[in-house]
Amino acid sequence: MGDRIEKVSIIISKGSLDGIYPGLIMANGARAEGMEANLFFTFFGLDAIHAKRHEHIKLATVGNPGLHLATWAGGIPGVSSVMTHYMESKMAKMDFPSIPEFIEMISDTGAGMYACLASVELFGLTKDDFVPQVDDIITVGDFYEMAGGGQIIFT
Amino acid sequence: MGDRIEKVSIIISKGSLDGIYPGLIMANGARAEGMEANLFFTFFGLDAIHAKRHEHIKLATVGNPGLHLATWAGGIPGVSSVMTHYMESKMAKMDFPSIPEFIEMISDTGAGMYACLASVELFGLTKDDFVPQVDDIITVGDFYEMAGGGQIIFT
Amino acid sequence: MGDRIEKVSIIISKGSLDGIYPGLIMANGARAEGMEANLFFTFFGLDAIHAKRHEHIKLATVGNPGLHLATWAGGIPGVSSVMTHYMESKMAKMDFPSIPEFIEMISDTGAGMYACLASVELFGLTKDDFVPQVDDIITVGDFYEMAGGGQIIFT
Repeated sequence: MGDRIEKVSIIISKGSLDGIYPGLIMANGARAEGMEANLFFTFFGLDAIHAKRHEHIKLATVGNPGLHLATWAGGIPGVSSVMTHYMESKMAKMDFPSIPEFIEMISDTGAGMYACLASVELFGLTKDDFVPQVDDIITVGDFYEMAGGGQIIFT
Repeated sequence: MGDRIEKVSIIISKGSLDGIYPGLIMANGARAEGMEANLFFTFFGLDAIHAKRHEHIKLATVGNPGLHLATWAGGIPGVSSVMTHYMESKMAKMDFPSIPEFIEMISDTGAGMYACLASVELFGLTKDDFVPQVDDIITVGDFYEMAGGGQIIFT
Repeated sequence: MGDRIEKVSIIISKGSLDGIYPGLIMANGARAEGMEANLFFTFFGLDAIHAKRHEHIKLATVGNPGLHLATWAGGIPGVSSVMTHYMESKMAKMDFPSIPEFIEMISDTGAGMYACLASVELFGLTKDDFVPQVDDIITVGDFYEMAGGGQIIFT
């Protein structure tokens, strides 16, 4: 039918643990199926590829009713870190990679990794701020060109 | 033109009222137009199909400037519940279905409902934790296979 | 290859500064590349086109770990406004348009702007509440019809 997905272009726009993992899981799954996969990091999603920050990404504990924490508890200093550790230890038990490990793994499968130029400028960053897996800093126009013939997934 | 959308694969990844409804509305609208529609629940989105939790889903009142509540008010114990009741009563007045009702309605139209295996394992759940409308627990690879020939919508 | 993207249908569903800009940037970039672009505003995303509210949109400072603010600081009255001003002043320095300016600019490029009927009714709004750039209030079915032959991007 020609209906098989050949390529996915996944945009990661959020900077929380629960905002970053879904995009990484979808990119990794796409590569495992032999599909072309490219990751585009924009806005707070840039944290996932920031060399100094990407080991310190936290779960969003307030404004996240899915956690079943009372909202006021989510706002107590330290609660975000506690929940993040809990989630991370659960993930480690399941041999789930950390974000830095996952980025490296996905890059090793041949997926492309790109930072959004407008966001990079907005936050005053340069290519040196990013992990070496980042292939390039690109414009929205470049993104659309790369994404042609595939599915765009904004996360 | 061959341009009509034939199928939508809608991913629900958030666990708040305002994170879940848009995906359900889009799935329902797709079925009403005679399109194939499948819903995929991942991460906190699993709450929408969790038999014990899906009647208790709340609005995200903090980290949600769209509500026009001062942030500190959103953090007061109980405010999230008050806002959720307000929204729900408004929805009820408009004959808007609750989440459990909506899930059932959409499933009855013939839409598929799937839980994401990696998330199910991460949260230590089993098929018994979900409402009976859930057809299966599937991998990312299965998802891409089902989504071929349609549009992927990540919410 | 016929692989060029011809059209994007971008849904804006969130009401925060960081929830609205990515969709506007992608719409603007699409028009700059000569692609057809339509914007659909739903749920809290309606704030972006609300005549009285769209100058007062704030950054989500709680539930947004990407900001590297301690969560409790994000909940202090006024912090959201301070961060929003910081971000806005950075954007202004870069000649980044404000949301009202950006909406006008994008509309001037020929992009369509639509509000989601279900959300408009839920919030008790009418066409008069919106900025004049809004072309129409439409149903989900209308949306799918317009989106055919292009990419749907839900932000």
